[in-house]
Amino acid sequence: MRVAIVGATGAVGHELLRVLESSTLKFDELQLYASPRSAGLKLPFAGQELTVRATPEGAIDADVILASAGGSISKALAPAWVAGGAVVIDNSSAFRYEPDVPLVVPEVNGEAALKHKGIIANPNCTTAIAVVAVAPLHRAYGVKRMIVSTYQATSGAGQKGIEELLEGTRVELAGGQPQAQVFAYPIPFNVIPHIDAFQDNGYTKEEMKVVWETRKILGDDSLKIECTAVRIPTLRTHSEAITLELERPATPDEARELLRQAPGVEVRDDPAARLYPMPLTATRKYDVEVGRIRASLVFDGGLELFVAGDQLLKGAALNAVQIAEYLQAKGALRGRVSG
Amino acid sequence: MRVAIVGATGAVGHELLRVLESSTLKFDELQLYASPRSAGLKLPFAGQELTVRATPEGAIDADVILASAGGSISKALAPAWVAGGAVVIDNSSAFRYEPDVPLVVPEVNGEAALKHKGIIANPNCTTAIAVVAVAPLHRAYGVKRMIVSTYQATSGAGQKGIEELLEGTRVELAGGQPQAQVFAYPIPFNVIPHIDAFQDNGYTKEEMKVVWETRKILGDDSLKIECTAVRIPTLRTHSEAITLELERPATPDEARELLRQAPGVEVRDDPAARLYPMPLTATRKYDVEVGRIRASLVFDGGLELFVAGDQLLKGAALNAVQIAEYLQAKGALRGRVSG
Repeated sequence: MRVAIVGATGAVGHELLRVLESSTLKFDELQLYASPRSAGLKLPFAGQELTVRATPEGAIDADVILASAGGSISKALAPAWVAGGAVVIDNSSAFRYEPDVPLVVPEVNGEAALKHKGIIANPNCTTAIAVVAVAPLHRAYGVKRMIVSTYQATSGAGQKGIEELLEGTRVELAGGQPQAQVFAYPIPFNVIPHIDAFQDNGYTKEEMKVVWETRKILGDDSLKIECTAVRIPTLRTHSEAITLELERPATPDEARELLRQAPGVEVRDDPAARLYPMPLTATRKYDVEVGRIRASLVFDGGLELFVAGDQLLKGAALNAVQIAEYLQAKGALRGRVSG
Repeated sequence: MRVAIVGATGAVGHELLRVLESSTLKFDELQLYASPRSAGLKLPFAGQELTVRATPEGAIDADVILASAGGSISKALAPAWVAGGAVVIDNSSAFRYEPDVPLVVPEVNGEAALKHKGIIANPNCTTAIAVVAVAPLHRAYGVKRMIVSTYQATSGAGQKGIEELLEGTRVELAGGQPQAQVFAYPIPFNVIPHIDAFQDNGYTKEEMKVVWETRKILGDDSLKIECTAVRIPTLRTHSEAITLELERPATPDEARELLRQAPGVEVRDDPAARLYPMPLTATRKYDVEVGRIRASLVFDGGLELFVAGDQLLKGAALNAVQIAEYLQAKGALRGRVSG
């Protein structure tokens, strides 16, 4: 079983290597691809050094391709990868909304991955983090309305986003004027309610991804969802305030109990002990932290919650590897594992 | 007409001096008070230097007292100030919920200030910023439900909050471990969904202040309001994502037009030109920036908006001075102005 990472040198690529090191996925070979200027770079993996190759124009001789090099590369090359026989788990938004491409969070709709036609899409990071917490509540109580406000880290824009925050912060602390190239405005000590392109309805594409993708993953197009997506000066981990109107009333205690049983969730919810979700504690954690669970004051029987999830892990690399693990566990991956 | 500031050396006190310099309020004398350890300090005001005195235990010989030294000092001393004949405009939460204490945002319910019995309360900063934008919409369309998620700056905790962020950020950039004394956890590059004390219902007092105070200012106890209040690593200006369900449907264009006429509001809402509210542009601005106005996707005829307001100004010092200006304009302030 041969695994390839396309986009191995990016922020998500880096996490894919780390997640694969401790993954239950069985494979014999790991190939790393990136842009030509990264070719020859050596990256550590499980005590070895692997050499990065330039992403070829055509097929890649691998059984699973974890693609995280951006939408345009996925769009251009994935058909050739599929034609070459690989299963492509794509972290970009290139294929997420195509009806015959499953959009998968394994804890929520893993079985959808089995119906793939070569490409499986990894959801947007904000959606993946929200849906791990919301899906169990939806199943038990039926979500009618969902209102999300996000607190998104700069690494959502990749390694260059982190660097722009760190460098800009240094400049600002020294009394200078931070630059903005990755973000629309300087992000140090600022808040920018603008992630991805604005759509005709006034929402950004990032906000609409949460609407479209949550509906697709939960398999319910009638869900009323809205989102305000906001970039803030943090390095890693997206937080989200989520309001839920429910078909059947839930108490915070019931919700807490249900979420304690839910895979991929860590209930961190004891205000008296100052336990609630935060980037400080959720960063580099596989589980999504869920807390501040309380009765909604605007929807009878509804809930308020706050979640924090490492968007490079559950929002990207971890979820992609978990899809591959799921497929392998179901015997749905080509490629023998030796030894 | 003699004005006194109690708490002159704090973050809000500093802003009170700046706002008074350009205020239309006519007064002959400005007295500055703070804790005994600040006594003797000289603070600049309108080209002069004023000496800070220790806040006395009893009455202060002034006509208007702008109090911003915290709830316990206001609670202990305001009765003596009132007995001494002063009108107290109090920035703490000590008296906000007392039925006979008006809670005033002049653009919204200035006339309530005229019914004072010595004390007028200045609202919580988050509430003041939200209500400037929401009140005109409430009057025109009737707000039924209001859901708020906040992005609150460290200066909401005073000058020491700013210093903890700046110093902690320096430490973290140098590879060290930032300390937390003002905030429950280190705030640099973090998000803390915990402002003020937790209440029995799981909401923080900061969150409930938005509920209680918005209802009191809008004079409508039936309003369904909820809030998630979150501290983020910014220096100044609170931002808020606000979802509104309305009695009568509003389009974004109608709301924008209405808000353009509203006092205290700057509509900053042209996504194509990258114009939206941000701390970067709202800081040190008197008006509250309102933007990202769009049709709600969960409430038919409802609205989504994003606001950013300098919480040391409209959320504190500016609003307090505007209350005094309002009273003076209505002839409701004791004290003659010479010259």
